[in-house]
Amino acid sequence: MAQRVKPLSGFPEFLPAGRAVEQRAIDILRTTFELHGFAGIQTRAVEPLAQLARKGEITKEVYTVRRLHAEESEADQLGLHYDLTVPFARYVLENAGQLEFPFRRYQIQPCWRGERPQQGRYREFWQADIDIVGQGSLAAHHDAEVLLVMLEALGQLGDELHLPAVVAKLNNRKLMQGFYAGLGVADPIGVIQIVDKLDKIGPAAVTEMLDTAGVPAAEAAKVLALAAIRGDDFAAQVRALGVANDLLEEGLDELSSLVAQVSTRFPNSVQANLSIARGLDYYTGSVFELTQVDNPTLGTISGGGRYDSLASDGRNTYPGVGISFGISRVLAPLLTNGALTASRPVPSAVLVAVDTDAARDRAHEVAAALRARGIACETSPNAAPFGKQIRYAERRGIPYVWFGGVTGEVKDIRTGDQHGADAGAWAPTPIDSRPSIVWNATG
Amino acid sequence: MAQRVKPLSGFPEFLPAGRAVEQRAIDILRTTFELHGFAGIQTRAVEPLAQLARKGEITKEVYTVRRLHAEESEADQLGLHYDLTVPFARYVLENAGQLEFPFRRYQIQPCWRGERPQQGRYREFWQADIDIVGQGSLAAHHDAEVLLVMLEALGQLGDELHLPAVVAKLNNRKLMQGFYAGLGVADPIGVIQIVDKLDKIGPAAVTEMLDTAGVPAAEAAKVLALAAIRGDDFAAQVRALGVANDLLEEGLDELSSLVAQVSTRFPNSVQANLSIARGLDYYTGSVFELTQVDNPTLGTISGGGRYDSLASDGRNTYPGVGISFGISRVLAPLLTNGALTASRPVPSAVLVAVDTDAARDRAHEVAAALRARGIACETSPNAAPFGKQIRYAERRGIPYVWFGGVTGEVKDIRTGDQHGADAGAWAPTPIDSRPSIVWNATG
Repeated sequence: MAQRVKPLSGFPEFLPAGRAVEQRAIDILRTTFELHGFAGIQTRAVEPLAQLARKGEITKEVYTVRRLHAEESEADQLGLHYDLTVPFARYVLENAGQLEFPFRRYQIQPCWRGERPQQGRYREFWQADIDIVGQGSLAAHHDAEVLLVMLEALGQLGDELHLPAVVAKLNNRKLMQGFYAGLGVADPIGVIQIVDKLDKIGPAAVTEMLDTAGVPAAEAAKVLALAAIRGDDFAAQVRALGVANDLLEEGLDELSSLVAQVSTRFPNSVQANLSIARGLDYYTGSVFELTQVDNPTLGTISGGGRYDSLASDGRNTYPGVGISFGISRVLAPLLTNGALTASRPVPSAVLVAVDTDAARDRAHEVAAALRARGIACETSPNAAPFGKQIRYAERRGIPYVWFGGVTGEVKDIRTGDQHGADAGAWAPTPIDSRPSIVWNATG
Repeated sequence: MAQRVKPLSGFPEFLPAGRAVEQRAIDILRTTFELHGFAGIQTRAVEPLAQLARKGEITKEVYTVRRLHAEESEADQLGLHYDLTVPFARYVLENAGQLEFPFRRYQIQPCWRGERPQQGRYREFWQADIDIVGQGSLAAHHDAEVLLVMLEALGQLGDELHLPAVVAKLNNRKLMQGFYAGLGVADPIGVIQIVDKLDKIGPAAVTEMLDTAGVPAAEAAKVLALAAIRGDDFAAQVRALGVANDLLEEGLDELSSLVAQVSTRFPNSVQANLSIARGLDYYTGSVFELTQVDNPTLGTISGGGRYDSLASDGRNTYPGVGISFGISRVLAPLLTNGALTASRPVPSAVLVAVDTDAARDRAHEVAAALRARGIACETSPNAAPFGKQIRYAERRGIPYVWFGGVTGEVKDIRTGDQHGADAGAWAPTPIDSRPSIVWNATG
């Protein structure tokens, strides 16, 4: 079938070497999450549209899904999930009777949003989420736990992929809400949603929005003063603004405790930042936003927080705390422009040369002996002159070519070094055994 | 947000223990494919609807995808892919200039079809595909290769998950087409598509369809006689039907060679079966269908074949051979009814007990020491009496509970055995280190 093809904007795909990097990133995240006792789940790609449309702001970005020849009467209106939180809340309710709480889960899947594609923003993108959810209640120390686990995972990822260091900015919704309530603001949640735009629209526009929302100028100034607070002595700075409120005090205590717990392990990776609001309406306590230290234009690469009731089935509520990492946000720009890639586009560490077509079986024996010890390899597709077979390996970045039978010779085609070897005992160097991470300065 | 939730028919989801089994299956497939030098790729979930609608029979089953607030004028008509072959063909064309041929890839992803859900048939399902694609030409030995790799992968999977043995039924489109042409049939491809229905509708209905298609009764009888042929002496049986044709001879040679190559490695897993047609129109040589030996009602769990030109960009054609395995087809019924599960729903091998809330840091030290050596663990969510903490572990199937600091004590809660241990040196038994496969006779 002759076809004309073009990429779809916002739906990034990678060449095999790029996918190898993405897969490695997913493996690192998964390994770290599992070491911390998080169970992996997958949810279906679709949710009832009514669930997805709940959050007003996001409605316009939902992709609807429909059978091409669906009957008009078909009831199920479905949409692709745009995050992993809405499906997870539904999964918890659906399976609550068969889950043990607190329930610790990770979930690594693609999500879809119909927004305008731009650098770091895609219509199809991978996220990695961890959450801990209780039934009725959930201890406060889990706030620090999910943040520590994500920082550890991103640390592993950053080390292996040579990514910029990550910093976590922390705030607390009780602190904000209590402060605004103490100021006498009528709709503290509304103010949180306005403050959330501070980074994008700046203080003048925020002041204007606060004015429209009925917040007087003096109070609006304090709202901005609160949002400007950073650093370890944040509690003293807040108190200096002279607002008294019980919820504010609770929030100050929680944030102090969270900063203390996390900075013990990651002293340079965490700071209180009282402008962090998180737009979504379900957060009720701690909120986190992670950015790359030397890459502020990339924006938030990971975020999350505490929610008192993500889900409720009438009898029980399910409070939780979670954090989400944008795999595509971080990796897709680097993989697309070729800055980040793998040392070879194939898993094979060895090409087993074939002398003659009749001797292909001997090459298969060698390959089987290597694979039995976990060494990825392939046999040459043809019995071309050895020079051509070596070039076949070279074009794929396969470092070794094997000649002869199980007792044969192995050549490192980069150095030309060739020596006798037993396929039942020889192994490539560890660095050669699988594709490794490569940065292209010119990428 | 209070919600009413119900499962969506045809979109299976699993509890964490079930997902652990599915993930293990995916890991086994991936490991085997990579050992054989197949590179993993992922393609986006959506394709232009025009691509998906190409194959007439499948059109009605496509899910269309559309932005909820898309402009009427929006050009891109998109649909979810219903297999991994159509996206792969498009990927090859789109990236041909940057791929090395023969290109060996595996792809493990969900697919979507809007067909009526039934046992083993889902609207969202996982497939695992391998293909080898050449530019212009591709050697015949790759037909045997993809089949051998899939049989090896399914053998590994079957061993670890205790699944029924698999048998591969092999045929060849040239053999069929040549035979029908030798009979004087006007539309051999049309006859292949009729014979493909033999299993479902039986010989009488096939004869009727052949009659409608203008195949005379005597020839129709030979078509059915060909389809009835099985076993090692298939070539002699075919020749006994007295049809002479060059393409038929070519097909007989190819099938003989394929059966010989595959049965050397898997003597009891392969048989010539001349009723195997594969409905899809792009196969042009070898065709394969795999079934579970003791589970015929499950139907085909894996299938594939040779295609002379899956894709063409005008300048080049891309012949290939591939095989696809239905992960959900095989696993989802077993995971859904609980027959197949994991020994525990969490990765944790150890619960680190917490003496007092103030001593949580000590538990974190123990956990860090265990994780540093790859041992999955979690710290107790609370400092409840130890009996309660042990029951927390018990309910999750976590086999060990750790008490005290890095130099502490570890208890196997199944036997009650407890002894002093160093968190920097102690390890669980290998079988306990991760969830293992469990069959429930009563499932």
